[in-house]
Amino acid sequence: MKKEAIEKVCRSVLSKVRPSKREREEVLSFSGSLADKLEKKLGSKKIIAEVMVEGSVAKDTWLAGERDVDVFMLLSMKYSKEDFPTVLDVVKEFVGGGWREVYAEHPYVEADLKGYTVDFVPCFKIRKADEVISSVDRSPLHTAYVKAHLSEAMKDDVRLLKRFMHGTNVYGAEIKVKGFSGYACEVLVLSYGSFSEVLEAASKWRRGQIVDGEGFYEDSEDEARMLFDSPLIIVDPIDKNRNVAAAVSMKKLGEFVAASRMFLEFPVEEFFYPQETKPLAVSDLHQEFEARGTDVIFLVFNRVDVAPDVLWGQLWKSSESLRKLLKRNDFQVINASAWSDEHGVNVLLFELENALISQSKKHVGPPVISGYAEKFLKKHVGVERTVSGPWIEDGRWIVLLRRRFNDATLLLREKLKDGGVRVGIGSKLVNGIRNNLAILKNGEISDFYSSNSDFARFLTEYLRGRPKWLSS
Amino acid sequence: MKKEAIEKVCRSVLSKVRPSKREREEVLSFSGSLADKLEKKLGSKKIIAEVMVEGSVAKDTWLAGERDVDVFMLLSMKYSKEDFPTVLDVVKEFVGGGWREVYAEHPYVEADLKGYTVDFVPCFKIRKADEVISSVDRSPLHTAYVKAHLSEAMKDDVRLLKRFMHGTNVYGAEIKVKGFSGYACEVLVLSYGSFSEVLEAASKWRRGQIVDGEGFYEDSEDEARMLFDSPLIIVDPIDKNRNVAAAVSMKKLGEFVAASRMFLEFPVEEFFYPQETKPLAVSDLHQEFEARGTDVIFLVFNRVDVAPDVLWGQLWKSSESLRKLLKRNDFQVINASAWSDEHGVNVLLFELENALISQSKKHVGPPVISGYAEKFLKKHVGVERTVSGPWIEDGRWIVLLRRRFNDATLLLREKLKDGGVRVGIGSKLVNGIRNNLAILKNGEISDFYSSNSDFARFLTEYLRGRPKWLSS
Repeated sequence: MKKEAIEKVCRSVLSKVRPSKREREEVLSFSGSLADKLEKKLGSKKIIAEVMVEGSVAKDTWLAGERDVDVFMLLSMKYSKEDFPTVLDVVKEFVGGGWREVYAEHPYVEADLKGYTVDFVPCFKIRKADEVISSVDRSPLHTAYVKAHLSEAMKDDVRLLKRFMHGTNVYGAEIKVKGFSGYACEVLVLSYGSFSEVLEAASKWRRGQIVDGEGFYEDSEDEARMLFDSPLIIVDPIDKNRNVAAAVSMKKLGEFVAASRMFLEFPVEEFFYPQETKPLAVSDLHQEFEARGTDVIFLVFNRVDVAPDVLWGQLWKSSESLRKLLKRNDFQVINASAWSDEHGVNVLLFELENALISQSKKHVGPPVISGYAEKFLKKHVGVERTVSGPWIEDGRWIVLLRRRFNDATLLLREKLKDGGVRVGIGSKLVNGIRNNLAILKNGEISDFYSSNSDFARFLTEYLRGRPKWLSS
Repeated sequence: MKKEAIEKVCRSVLSKVRPSKREREEVLSFSGSLADKLEKKLGSKKIIAEVMVEGSVAKDTWLAGERDVDVFMLLSMKYSKEDFPTVLDVVKEFVGGGWREVYAEHPYVEADLKGYTVDFVPCFKIRKADEVISSVDRSPLHTAYVKAHLSEAMKDDVRLLKRFMHGTNVYGAEIKVKGFSGYACEVLVLSYGSFSEVLEAASKWRRGQIVDGEGFYEDSEDEARMLFDSPLIIVDPIDKNRNVAAAVSMKKLGEFVAASRMFLEFPVEEFFYPQETKPLAVSDLHQEFEARGTDVIFLVFNRVDVAPDVLWGQLWKSSESLRKLLKRNDFQVINASAWSDEHGVNVLLFELENALISQSKKHVGPPVISGYAEKFLKKHVGVERTVSGPWIEDGRWIVLLRRRFNDATLLLREKLKDGGVRVGIGSKLVNGIRNNLAILKNGEISDFYSSNSDFARFLTEYLRGRPKWLSS
């Protein structure tokens, strides 16, 4: 019964994610001819490069309607990284206008062409994974491997899995998401055989799970765990030293496992296509915070001009640093999150049990017997910060101390007034925080909320707190 | 230098605690003739008993001015406990009036006679500790042992140690104090040789310290620790199976150790004779609580008609139960204490960081992978107490829950309305708490404070928090 229900849902989803014959022809003809022309253009400039379509287009695993094309320029080893700018100059000339230079591990060019977003990526042509210089060099090997092993039926399964991961919000290896890449989806289907077998397996995954279809670590799983040290290890079939799931965070792993279990139990299409979030009315926001009974603090600050992966890396790092700062100062942090429009405004969010805590706190000192006892007494007896004590409890000196900060907003204001370098704010965010930081609590966010619908959706989802697929 | 200072202080204290020749003669003649007369009286009633003076009078270790005399009636084994009431009836007739019957392990009679408080205690005459029936049977053996081993000089040391323990508030094996008995002082001096050697040793004591002058456990200290399981073990010289320090709490052990270290460093007479506490002016009390920055909650309730040891046992037990109740409900308990006038009013005190905490709290559920996940979701998704979530963090389901109680006074009021039987209130206190409980916070205690000077002193000392000897 359940199996039939799953199949029914999958058929319905497939009818949406499988590209039509016409779309397939269009995409392949566009990308193929683009590669051919570029190869000729490069040749005319005396650059010998094999230009190939890579990514989901080459592997025939893209989702209907997606318009992302990866074009790789494979250079022989007689070239060096120093030649890449020259290569990219030719690409820019080839494209004409409307291109952007993007800096990842090394630079590439992104351009909008005939409704497609095309990435032009220079790399070295390698035969085996251990020749790799930059990680993009591996992509052609991935493409070749997938093309050689993935059956037609499995392509459907990859598309289902990608859509499922989109719908449950665990798709994407970028720093913002820390989820699963497209290649990870392909390797999972190759390892387990089908979409539903991936979900069956995932629903039993544990932290440190190893997926190793090629059996590189068949008798040495501990070795793999030592080598990779990630919540999830999907061994790259073309490189036993690489974890395809290196980007996957514990959070996204947990969400995928939970969503898999839940879908197998309640197979409905909402997992693939969740409902769009309708933001709370701004007039209800104050009441919402009131009823919630916690304090939500927002740090709103200005644009930062870096690539999204860099920005999100800095946001997550800064969020973690401030969470620790708050914890060190005894604030009970319930949760933290971040939002950014990636070009204008950034928000770090911290939810606390209380933004205001007691003025004084119990401070546990050394055992009365220890050599530190005298020093502790000298420090604490009769000084202004000592509110009461020292007294003895359980063999130790104890003192009631006045806190340095009992208001989280004051703590943050103080520690961030110089941009927060000393409390672990990412270097790229320091300027924006120093020059343009607003610290808002609960309903004080209303103005910004009503001015930005994407943020409003984010906050509404944050306040609800549960994955969309748990609504059903 | 320091040694001389210590000796000087000791000389001064000794001149106050050593009874004068006249006092000694008076006490000995009063107690001796009392015992003789009682023995004759018992004989006249056909009760064959050896009547003996025991305790500090017999051992010549009482502090000048103390007027406590222990008179023991040693019965042979042909008597049984059932005969004790008959024996005590003779005592009552002998005393005439003004006696009180007191119930300890078994009953005895207390009477005020010519300015002395005399305890008349029936017991069995035993030769060796292993014949003991009731613990009081051991007393004559203790007396004999101390008289046989304690030199004249050591009697001074015992008096110094007793006075030191009085002054540092660790003297008394009764439940209220959980400190050191007089016999413990005697055994300590016998074990270490002198007052200052006891302090030298104590300043290095650790939890689980063994004092074993007779060397019963010389090569088997672990055995002793298994047998006794107390913070401090002073093996009874006349009974290797008894810990003379069984009553000593970790708190009092720590205080004695710390006071010993401090006295050896700063030898001043205040350790023996601390200044009397001057209560805070009631008009300053509100301001005092305000500046303190915590919440102090007082449970004030009615008289309980039991012996002090029973009362204090119930107060400490109830205090610990309520501390746990508060902790279970996420209130940060800084400290707890208790006060009683032992006949009219009792007070349990709890100091919290905040009596009011957040309305909601983060509740950590099972791992997403576990078999409990479904049950957890069923329980928490879409129910009224769930404020947000469930979401996934670190592989586990998490939910933001509305607390059942976020106000400590409301929690206590609710849980104590039936007297508190189900939250661990001692059975003897249940009635008083059910019928006559006031729950007061901070300055609300002012009225009671100004009506009771002993409580005012207690609270003033509590608020200051540090041992008196740390003032110096």
